[in-house]
Amino acid sequence: MPLHAALYSELRKRDAQAVRAAIREGSYDRHTAGLAPGKLQCNLAIVSENVALDFLRFCQRNPKPCPVVGVGNTGDPFLPILGKDIDIRTDVPRYRVFRDGQLAEEVTSIGHLWSDDLVTVALGCSFTFENALIANGIPVRHIEQDKTVPMFRTSIPLVPAGVFAGEMVATMRPIHKDRVEDAYRISAAFPHAHGAPIAQGNPADIGIADLNKPDWGDPVDVGNDEVPVYWACGVTPQNVLLNAKLPLCITHAPGHMLIADVDETLEGPAFQTMKQT
Amino acid sequence: MPLHAALYSELRKRDAQAVRAAIREGSYDRHTAGLAPGKLQCNLAIVSENVALDFLRFCQRNPKPCPVVGVGNTGDPFLPILGKDIDIRTDVPRYRVFRDGQLAEEVTSIGHLWSDDLVTVALGCSFTFENALIANGIPVRHIEQDKTVPMFRTSIPLVPAGVFAGEMVATMRPIHKDRVEDAYRISAAFPHAHGAPIAQGNPADIGIADLNKPDWGDPVDVGNDEVPVYWACGVTPQNVLLNAKLPLCITHAPGHMLIADVDETLEGPAFQTMKQT
Repeated sequence: MPLHAALYSELRKRDAQAVRAAIREGSYDRHTAGLAPGKLQCNLAIVSENVALDFLRFCQRNPKPCPVVGVGNTGDPFLPILGKDIDIRTDVPRYRVFRDGQLAEEVTSIGHLWSDDLVTVALGCSFTFENALIANGIPVRHIEQDKTVPMFRTSIPLVPAGVFAGEMVATMRPIHKDRVEDAYRISAAFPHAHGAPIAQGNPADIGIADLNKPDWGDPVDVGNDEVPVYWACGVTPQNVLLNAKLPLCITHAPGHMLIADVDETLEGPAFQTMKQT
Repeated sequence: MPLHAALYSELRKRDAQAVRAAIREGSYDRHTAGLAPGKLQCNLAIVSENVALDFLRFCQRNPKPCPVVGVGNTGDPFLPILGKDIDIRTDVPRYRVFRDGQLAEEVTSIGHLWSDDLVTVALGCSFTFENALIANGIPVRHIEQDKTVPMFRTSIPLVPAGVFAGEMVATMRPIHKDRVEDAYRISAAFPHAHGAPIAQGNPADIGIADLNKPDWGDPVDVGNDEVPVYWACGVTPQNVLLNAKLPLCITHAPGHMLIADVDETLEGPAFQTMKQT
């Protein structure tokens, strides 16, 4: 077993804090799927305070692709609402740094970039409802095949806010026709993680030309008794941030998420009453 | 029948836009309970842009009392995400204007106060889950008795953001002991309208000294076979805004809500894809 696979296997047995500690100290910088099962994993967007209000307005107006689960104080790298001692400068395995809308670098910590001006926004991610689908006996093709979920630009307009505008990015998962209704019901229970699908069936209806040519990720086959089902995708805010050509913004690298201490259901008292530390 | 009762009765037959038109032209300035059934009604908070980011952070960190359903652009009195031609300067029956944490005036329009600096935040309200409780055969005592729901200051700390901090305000509704579980399940389906209860049973557990002495609203009796059930209350953000002693903030008058065009379930495509007009 390669060293990183052995480490991943070992980390799967640890809790969220232990996983973050391994990431923080540089022992682990790979994808987070399957780690700290049951804990919320988050997309990440870090922006300057002067656009943070507009970015939050944008997320509020487009809650399916941009479900906000945590917002840091300006200049404060900690996110106590999501977990103990989360330091956003070090606790994500890989970050992407964008300058003027271009990828400038991919790094494993952002301490050198942090400033009093930055605001962290954490957004729910599809791992949450995928786990629920699998737990309810609905297989998820790209996970079965160890691929990256196929993602597509759609023609679905987003509600703009300030410099933030564009069209929704959607993921596609083939679902057996007898389970499509269940898939809607199960994922609808997680509005903080993209919620119910945004469409099903003919890809042309939402402006997708060819399901075999995703804009990001890998194509997956749709069987004869399956329906392509589309969910709002967490790449949407990244795409919108890039289009805004901000002087600086930082996101996680796809698949390399922030792992929170709160349950992915957001049930229980922790999320509602956790005190600032 | 008094004139205002006749008007209320007539307005109950109209849709949300027609009700807002009557409010806008000054024909109706009373409470909105029962109007435009099935449509989302909203608590209102209007603040200066310089505290808007912190207020949104506060709401995000305290989603049970402060569920944001709409945020206006700075200086823009329209809220297209919530409905056609909603003009927040005129479309709420009564407003409360606070200066330095003191009630300065109660008015039926705020056109004279509007400025390029103001940001409107609309928050879900308890009407939504009360309607669902009643539709599921769970009676709501204060509605049966034509009283105002009893509201209490609690000892439950809120997660602070900037100048915004304090304790949660909760409402209490007596629920038959056999229906408490149902009441949790039913209201949990509306996270944008305070969601599931925050507590049940002994009021002292959440810092309430005497259920017969609410801080706002009217006391209601709790029967022998009933349990007092507590929900997060939309007065919480008002209370927190007052404590912050802002030079100016504007809220709706209790019970005099903004009526939106979107369904109170927030289901259907309108809320997700409504274009800015």
